[in-house]
Amino acid sequence: MTAQQRDMVDQILRNAPFDLGGDVAAQRPLLEQMLTAQPLPADVRMTPGNLGGIPVIFIDIAGVEPCGIIFHIHGGGFALGSAGGSAGLASSLARKAGMRAVSVDYRLAPEHPYPAALQDVTAAYRALAEQAGSAGRIVVSGESAGGNLAIELLIAGKAEGLTMPAAALLLSPMTDLTVTGSSYAGKAHADPAISAQAIRTRAADYLAGTDPADPLVSPIFADLSGLPPLLIQAGSHEVLLDDATRLAVKAAADDVAVILDITPGVPHVFQAFAALLDEGDAALNRAARFVRDTTAQKAAA
Amino acid sequence: MTAQQRDMVDQILRNAPFDLGGDVAAQRPLLEQMLTAQPLPADVRMTPGNLGGIPVIFIDIAGVEPCGIIFHIHGGGFALGSAGGSAGLASSLARKAGMRAVSVDYRLAPEHPYPAALQDVTAAYRALAEQAGSAGRIVVSGESAGGNLAIELLIAGKAEGLTMPAAALLLSPMTDLTVTGSSYAGKAHADPAISAQAIRTRAADYLAGTDPADPLVSPIFADLSGLPPLLIQAGSHEVLLDDATRLAVKAAADDVAVILDITPGVPHVFQAFAALLDEGDAALNRAARFVRDTTAQKAAA
Repeated sequence: MTAQQRDMVDQILRNAPFDLGGDVAAQRPLLEQMLTAQPLPADVRMTPGNLGGIPVIFIDIAGVEPCGIIFHIHGGGFALGSAGGSAGLASSLARKAGMRAVSVDYRLAPEHPYPAALQDVTAAYRALAEQAGSAGRIVVSGESAGGNLAIELLIAGKAEGLTMPAAALLLSPMTDLTVTGSSYAGKAHADPAISAQAIRTRAADYLAGTDPADPLVSPIFADLSGLPPLLIQAGSHEVLLDDATRLAVKAAADDVAVILDITPGVPHVFQAFAALLDEGDAALNRAARFVRDTTAQKAAA
Repeated sequence: MTAQQRDMVDQILRNAPFDLGGDVAAQRPLLEQMLTAQPLPADVRMTPGNLGGIPVIFIDIAGVEPCGIIFHIHGGGFALGSAGGSAGLASSLARKAGMRAVSVDYRLAPEHPYPAALQDVTAAYRALAEQAGSAGRIVVSGESAGGNLAIELLIAGKAEGLTMPAAALLLSPMTDLTVTGSSYAGKAHADPAISAQAIRTRAADYLAGTDPADPLVSPIFADLSGLPPLLIQAGSHEVLLDDATRLAVKAAADDVAVILDITPGVPHVFQAFAALLDEGDAALNRAARFVRDTTAQKAAA
């Protein structure tokens, strides 16, 4: 049953015209189309707004009295994707967690390289934390490059005394812009969508000369001590698998509460395929539990 | 609050007369005394028995209609510990999961080196799986050296066509008898109980000349593909931290469903201190969820 689902998702991705490493002008509309092919459920309400001057989309599920807010940072290699494109994933998380979500439209590379995106998500997060009065009911989440920005937001924010959220949820995060994970070779054939070359292209756009080993672009090289609990999910069919595992190993060494949650046989950000893939839905259920548990713990403390 | 609890557990362990690397004749009663200092709750029923000729203790919670069985393998460096000594931990898991537990008295080193313990747990597991009709309602669990035996039971069993359990739960498993984890140095001061020297002593007793890099004694060197879902828990204050993280990384690379769950600031098999330590109780709750989820999935499949 789910073996068939996994094969179907694999084939969809292998046959899709989208190429993460391709020309941004051509790829941006292709990714948007892929992400918004399925209409959102009728009870999802999207409200454009801004936080700290950064454009965002607030996402509410009709009838849900939110017990917190998920601050979601979309993926797309720092160069593609949008707040609206990730609304499907963010709304699924919000629904399962019983929360509101907000999805951030940060500036994209190559037009706006590092640190533009990190500045934008930090400004938006800071404004949200001030509105909320306390960051204790906020969970930061991010997919792929958004997972990089999510943890870098915490790393940079810790140094600046930013109030930490209750937790961070990182889906297939990019954590090493030196592009050295052994899974680039080990999972090259298994990964239906992403190659080392695509990651190198997107990293170069974002870095624009910044040292790829800088801890503010490659969190596996950062001091992670003092960060809130992390849940890191990835699929075993992704070249970025080692980006996920190495971040978890570093967090553990640095005395951070961390859960690494690997689903076999599924690709990069497989949770976005939850409607087609039982494993994606199950992973979102575990993520939602983590979000609820960590916000409840923070509230109790 | 829990910082105080963590300090207390740390001090208890630093001041305890027990030494994992000490003389077995002296240390066996000390460990037994430490593990059985607190009486079990009155509703825990222990029934001695045997499975496949191996002595075991069946553990039932009065009033619980078990939805499965936890096959528990105690720790103690392959040389210490007993089925009864781990009944407290096994009964906590059984209670939280709504299951029965069985704790196995396998033969100990140095009197009985590898493969005696692995043969015993395999014989007991096989008998249980045959009794149960299906292994789908069995979850294998193990602490420390018992975590080694739990995963080796699956690795060796896979080669022999043994029916796999629904899942395996590994608490601070010993996974590398070559004793090379970087946490032996990095966590030497943080770990209140265990040293590289103690692990080397116990590994030598168990190996009795077997190559420590043999995949049947050091699972980080094994092919893990085809194993059932794994939950690996460890504390960040243990020299065996890298044994846990490296097993998770290998499982992910080998396309196994794996969750690595690290609790900061707590020692080896901190779940045994659940009565004193909120983090221990919380980790057991997550373990029990995993046990219930995986057995339910297996039953549905």
